[in-house]
Amino acid sequence: MTREQLFENIKRKQSFLCVGLDTDLKKVPPFLLEQAAKDETFDPIFAFNQAIIDATAPYCIAYKPNLAFYEAHGVKGWIAFEKTVRYIRQHYPDQFIIADAKRGDIGNTSKLYARTFFEEMDVDAVTVAPYMGEDSVTPFLGYPDKWVILLALTSNKGSEDFQTHSLTPPVRLREEAEKPVRLFEHVILRSQEWEKEASPNGEAGGGLMFVVGATQGSAFADIRRLAPDHFLLVPGIGAQGGSLEEVCKYGWNDHCGLIVNSSRAIIYADSTEHFAQVAAERAREVQQQMAAILHKNL
Amino acid sequence: MTREQLFENIKRKQSFLCVGLDTDLKKVPPFLLEQAAKDETFDPIFAFNQAIIDATAPYCIAYKPNLAFYEAHGVKGWIAFEKTVRYIRQHYPDQFIIADAKRGDIGNTSKLYARTFFEEMDVDAVTVAPYMGEDSVTPFLGYPDKWVILLALTSNKGSEDFQTHSLTPPVRLREEAEKPVRLFEHVILRSQEWEKEASPNGEAGGGLMFVVGATQGSAFADIRRLAPDHFLLVPGIGAQGGSLEEVCKYGWNDHCGLIVNSSRAIIYADSTEHFAQVAAERAREVQQQMAAILHKNL
Repeated sequence: MTREQLFENIKRKQSFLCVGLDTDLKKVPPFLLEQAAKDETFDPIFAFNQAIIDATAPYCIAYKPNLAFYEAHGVKGWIAFEKTVRYIRQHYPDQFIIADAKRGDIGNTSKLYARTFFEEMDVDAVTVAPYMGEDSVTPFLGYPDKWVILLALTSNKGSEDFQTHSLTPPVRLREEAEKPVRLFEHVILRSQEWEKEASPNGEAGGGLMFVVGATQGSAFADIRRLAPDHFLLVPGIGAQGGSLEEVCKYGWNDHCGLIVNSSRAIIYADSTEHFAQVAAERAREVQQQMAAILHKNL
Repeated sequence: MTREQLFENIKRKQSFLCVGLDTDLKKVPPFLLEQAAKDETFDPIFAFNQAIIDATAPYCIAYKPNLAFYEAHGVKGWIAFEKTVRYIRQHYPDQFIIADAKRGDIGNTSKLYARTFFEEMDVDAVTVAPYMGEDSVTPFLGYPDKWVILLALTSNKGSEDFQTHSLTPPVRLREEAEKPVRLFEHVILRSQEWEKEASPNGEAGGGLMFVVGATQGSAFADIRRLAPDHFLLVPGIGAQGGSLEEVCKYGWNDHCGLIVNSSRAIIYADSTEHFAQVAAERAREVQQQMAAILHKNL
């Protein structure tokens, strides 16, 4: 999906919501597990996802399955993950699919991960961890209409352990004088150089986005100065305590520039047979807040 | 496996070699693929691993399957990965099994990854990326006899992009005066605090190791100053150009303290029906170099 198509979807659906499919068998409605106990061909992970997707699709523009939740069930989990991606592709082709994998390895191994997610699975985007540097990230770049979403400033408490440390020697920030930059800022600046090298004429139609936690408040303003045009994937709304208003106040750009994720607060809002309907209501509430923000800002 | 058991294995087998099972269907002997084409119940990934393991087990103390190579084949790959781990457990229970996964996510997600690898898969160790900080790493700590192998200073070129930058403000290095430390040094120091908190009396029997690339030469001496007692997992010997002598010169401690990995140079040394025998010869050559080093140093 190109950036223009993503922006069109946001305007058409009046939403920049991503629903996180963190499907945990300890939290899905018990009746699904009872059905699985009676019928071993019944896949409770996929059944849960399918119901959540059918119910929430009108209110969101993206889905983000987190691989950890699928790997936890080994082979069965991988089958459920692959079925989920195929289901979204077939029935909701305008949805942007993010494999939240946080991968990153030496060059030849990252190349293999990129091929797996972009060619075999055909997702639109993969989250990638930057610690191993250029050759761990660039194999994911340069796929037409595919996106690397690089961890920059995450939503968790541990983001303060390394990401916010200042670096020496100082680095030149665009036109400004040299000054110390923080690790996450350096990640954002360096990776844009790699993006340019991967697509010198900007025609690949894919490229780079960044993960910035909703809990990071005014840091969004610093990030927008360094990456004015990039989309930011924003987890941490809802269960983790981030505020949608604050994220939009500091993180907005002229094509929205935000994909805001909510997982637990939507998909586990109810644990009865009405779970999908309640999830749809929660997603719709967020979508309506987003519609108001879009109306005001575009 | 405890540190003492690992050291006992190293002395008994006169080896600190880890064989990396980076099993790539583009590189395995063609006759395995021909057999798979004729018989769809034949699993060429597992068959390759089984032959390599049977041939090399006398010469190594650890195996390290890299998850990327298994994920590349989706469900079939996961089945091959699980079969490989079970095969090593059953037939070679003294081998240390490292899932090279480079995972790391917010607390509740890392907890799930830890459960998957340590409880479901029952591997001995998982490689973890430190970028997301404390709550992304600690869920892997505190499992009795299980190990987190944290990326510190990796073997690839991209290790210079972020890992070797100096941080401000300066950090106090143990008893020394405050001075700027590099990111990888800060990772090594901070994570040891988390290790202590996870096992205050040191009785868990598991804990922390670090990934340090064989290509990093004299940086091993700096790392040994910060982590004198920890085992280091050292990739980058062989195809990536690191030197075993140099690694041992700078990285050695009184219980060896090194697990040196070789993947491609051993497992793809030959592509005929004799591949396993040639792999055994290559592994034996490395083991004999290691035996000489052990003899000199212990």
